[in-house]
Amino acid sequence: QMPRGNLETVHHRALVLAQLRQWLDDLRFREAFECMRKLRINLNLIYDHNPKVFLENIKTFITQLNSINYINLFLTELREEDTTSSMYPHPQSSLVQPLPVSAQKKVDVVCDALRSAMESMDPNKFCLSILTAHVKKTVPELDIALQKVHELRESPPTAPGAVSAEEALKYLLFLVNVNDLYEHSLGTYDFDLVLMVAEKSQKDPKEYLPFLKMLKSLEPNYQHYTIDKHLKRYRKALHHLSKCGKEHFPEALKLVKEQNLYSEALHLYTANSAEYKALSCAYAEHLIQQQQAEQAGLLLWRCGEPISALQAFASSSSWRNAICVAQQIPLPPDHLALLARDLAGKLTEQRRYSEAALLLDQYAKDCEEAILALITGAFWEEALRLIYLHNRQDITETNLKPALTEAVGTQTVFLEAQVATFARHRARLAVVREQKQKARLDMLDEDDPDCPDAEFYSEASSVMTGSKYSHSNSRISSRSSKNRRKAERKKISLKEGSPMEDRALMYAMGEIITTVDKMREEVHSLLKALVLFQFDKQAEKLQLAYDDALRVMEAAVPEVWPVNLQIVCFQHQFFFSDAEVLTPPKMRNGVKWKLTILK
Amino acid sequence: QMPRGNLETVHHRALVLAQLRQWLDDLRFREAFECMRKLRINLNLIYDHNPKVFLENIKTFITQLNSINYINLFLTELREEDTTSSMYPHPQSSLVQPLPVSAQKKVDVVCDALRSAMESMDPNKFCLSILTAHVKKTVPELDIALQKVHELRESPPTAPGAVSAEEALKYLLFLVNVNDLYEHSLGTYDFDLVLMVAEKSQKDPKEYLPFLKMLKSLEPNYQHYTIDKHLKRYRKALHHLSKCGKEHFPEALKLVKEQNLYSEALHLYTANSAEYKALSCAYAEHLIQQQQAEQAGLLLWRCGEPISALQAFASSSSWRNAICVAQQIPLPPDHLALLARDLAGKLTEQRRYSEAALLLDQYAKDCEEAILALITGAFWEEALRLIYLHNRQDITETNLKPALTEAVGTQTVFLEAQVATFARHRARLAVVREQKQKARLDMLDEDDPDCPDAEFYSEASSVMTGSKYSHSNSRISSRSSKNRRKAERKKISLKEGSPMEDRALMYAMGEIITTVDKMREEVHSLLKALVLFQFDKQAEKLQLAYDDALRVMEAAVPEVWPVNLQIVCFQHQFFFSDAEVLTPPKMRNGVKWKLTILK
Repeated sequence: QMPRGNLETVHHRALVLAQLRQWLDDLRFREAFECMRKLRINLNLIYDHNPKVFLENIKTFITQLNSINYINLFLTELREEDTTSSMYPHPQSSLVQPLPVSAQKKVDVVCDALRSAMESMDPNKFCLSILTAHVKKTVPELDIALQKVHELRESPPTAPGAVSAEEALKYLLFLVNVNDLYEHSLGTYDFDLVLMVAEKSQKDPKEYLPFLKMLKSLEPNYQHYTIDKHLKRYRKALHHLSKCGKEHFPEALKLVKEQNLYSEALHLYTANSAEYKALSCAYAEHLIQQQQAEQAGLLLWRCGEPISALQAFASSSSWRNAICVAQQIPLPPDHLALLARDLAGKLTEQRRYSEAALLLDQYAKDCEEAILALITGAFWEEALRLIYLHNRQDITETNLKPALTEAVGTQTVFLEAQVATFARHRARLAVVREQKQKARLDMLDEDDPDCPDAEFYSEASSVMTGSKYSHSNSRISSRSSKNRRKAERKKISLKEGSPMEDRALMYAMGEIITTVDKMREEVHSLLKALVLFQFDKQAEKLQLAYDDALRVMEAAVPEVWPVNLQIVCFQHQFFFSDAEVLTPPKMRNGVKWKLTILK
Repeated sequence: QMPRGNLETVHHRALVLAQLRQWLDDLRFREAFECMRKLRINLNLIYDHNPKVFLENIKTFITQLNSINYINLFLTELREEDTTSSMYPHPQSSLVQPLPVSAQKKVDVVCDALRSAMESMDPNKFCLSILTAHVKKTVPELDIALQKVHELRESPPTAPGAVSAEEALKYLLFLVNVNDLYEHSLGTYDFDLVLMVAEKSQKDPKEYLPFLKMLKSLEPNYQHYTIDKHLKRYRKALHHLSKCGKEHFPEALKLVKEQNLYSEALHLYTANSAEYKALSCAYAEHLIQQQQAEQAGLLLWRCGEPISALQAFASSSSWRNAICVAQQIPLPPDHLALLARDLAGKLTEQRRYSEAALLLDQYAKDCEEAILALITGAFWEEALRLIYLHNRQDITETNLKPALTEAVGTQTVFLEAQVATFARHRARLAVVREQKQKARLDMLDEDDPDCPDAEFYSEASSVMTGSKYSHSNSRISSRSSKNRRKAERKKISLKEGSPMEDRALMYAMGEIITTVDKMREEVHSLLKALVLFQFDKQAEKLQLAYDDALRVMEAAVPEVWPVNLQIVCFQHQFFFSDAEVLTPPKMRNGVKWKLTILK
């Protein structure tokens, strides 16, 4: 509702904004400012309208306004938001040079620019505005502001009309919460300043005077530490405490543990000191709890705690380090063998068979177990190497050859299953796509038949529905993006008739292709081993099966991932997970695996 | 020009085609056929118009035509081309069910369908058409046609009007070149048939009779071999020759070498025979020439030629096999050590330091060289393992630590250079894109300003120009696609002002990102080694530098590879090389490399 009987103050906003823009372009800041103040237009526009021009003419702005209050008003109203994109959009025709994107925030840029301009023009006259510029930064520079007040008291300015320390402090107290200011004054470790603020505040001297007296009585480093800790500036506190001598180290260690300041602490003590060792041990304990046992082991080893280091390395399967530490201790040979066997067991569980074999062979001195591990891991050549190294050709007959024929069987069955599933998915995808196409045609019959985008949309219809669905859902939930993606994947189901069945099929087929493509190296080495032991027929069968599988899959790619589907994907800026589904998997045709000698 | 004074024969083609389609839809093949013959319309249309319907009504077609000549005409005119997409496109309204895409060729499908229909209806009556159907297949079945003629002579049909063997042969000679027919008759190993063809041909009996007589005198396997070789059917020839006994083996080996039939030959002899060994050796020699020395080694080893196998393995850096063979021979220890050292040298050249170290350590018994190889290859943990294994902690001070500090320096400098180049490319890309945008605006001012696609096209203008250019060029050259892509890449130059400079910049930036991203594992292991030896400051510097590099590059991806550029790429179905340039490189953020203990 319009204010009644006051029609002369009603202005058409578009006209006003046009006038303001004209003034700002003409650098007539005063007119613009007064008009905006009167009509309650957000003052940020003065900067936002053309940041580059404003920053280049900041002194003109200050001179024209010529008022501490006006400048303070402007500073106080600064917000991070860009009013030309939110409240007062530029008319389309205008061309404003954008500032290069900077890492600095707008408020900080304007505060710093105004402050340095005022400091160079007349620091006394603009004193209060300079203080405002410090205080209004996104991280208020209260320390600096307080320091300036302190300077005013130490050497009062002689210029006529200059602001006194008292006035400045009063003004600061008007801008900032008195408790914040008191705390920050403490943080300058300048007790005069603290007293000054405390006196101006409503605080009870009976409360703060004893505290300040106590602080004054402390050794300077410990005093600073006490203040920093009081202000929750724990890094600084630790830094000061570390200079307080050995008797305060337990207190420092406690602080480090409470505040998780291990890394910082290690920098504050020399590497050979007892404190460094104690810190390293504490840190290692913490890292082990954080599942970072390997790094814990490194800290323990280098600070001379090999036994703990060994435990840390062993628990994180960092077996090379574990073995080194064990030999440095040195562990007796039988213990070393046990350790190696233990580590090998863990590595076997993680399917790291070649590393397990090295441990068994070289440290547990059990070449038979080593060879069996290599055979299990399908490291045929390396198994053969150990067989000849230890002259155990008997294992070739008892284990290696049977394992080879078993492997060729397993691989063939696996390939057949993959190819069958792939073919089933491919056929089903064709059916699903045809159904969707039909549904679209039915819909189009009722609709505008000439809609040029219809084809695009239909092709990706399920993709789009799916994305919208998961999108709205992801907003509600606050889970991590990884969890969200997992959840999305669950939603796309291979069940027949599921709304996103085509996406599910494409995803499944992509996975199959990647799996089968990854087998190149393994198949190659298996083929060589088969040929060596004269299993030519099995090798030929496998080579044929694998070649067929790769060819079938490569040939299906243009059908399963047609180009126009990818366009839709990019046009609608799908989420990462969609792009993943809609991009055809890459096949590593550069990896040669076939044997010429097999037909 | 119209034929003069003969206006009644001028037909409007669209009307004629409409009539033909109607007839074909109504299964009135006879009318359609005669009309087409008269107006010289390609007979393929009878099938192409609706393949499914034609195949389902093939007997109706034969019955209606009721003429051997007509059927032969139709068969003779069959071409692989689809006339409904080349000469006589379907009117847009029609809906023809497409046949499921089949691997078989159209000509073969029609020939086989017609032939089996005629055989079931009346093989005697349709005899000549059946022969035509055999001969007209994409790979003419001359043997079968000849066999049928032979049968006609053996048991002349009694039916009235049946074709005699003589007539059939005459007809075949009219369809097929007489020499082809003669050769194929030889290939049936049926001398009666050969004589029959020879008699009908213009061949001189003085020429062919002695040849046939000579063949007849041979042992059957050797006779078949001689015929197959004469007909250049070398596989069959080898197969027959292999049954001719040991005395013919030299001839077989010669054939194998000449025709490169090694794989086939190995299947024809038992694995333990002298022939098998001789073939294996010959094959190995051939494979070595083809740069397939490893496979040659496998063949030699398994047939009991370890010395040659060792050479083959050594020359292909197949070191595990080489060592195994050497131990099987067995090579004396000092020779084995020399071999290991030699192999290690080759592997070092190929930057395969860890394998070289294994050889040096376990076979050359030179742990110091092994450790140095590992240090050179930046395998810090493995180097340390050997240091402790052989109690050579002195190398830690003399080599390992200096190498670590050198590595951190190299890596930091390398990263700085990559980041600097990346930043330079990024800035330049912005300039180039702005210039292209400006050029587009200038062009649009003269043009239709509302062109909705303009933005798309401009963004990718250089990409498109580039592709067209390289496309036209690639047609001219007949080089392999790999070479072509290399050549294309050369054409896109980083030189300022080059027409495809933006593409070149994107390509270069993609390469930098991939290179830097690949360093994750290496940096991680270097950081751990640095921490272990208390080089925390250097480690922190490297971690910071690498983290910055990764962050800068990840942040630049959306700017360098904007989504709308990818759309254009897919809309215009660019070549692989373009898609490669326009797809942002993937960063492996899943590979964790940072150390918590470094700040």
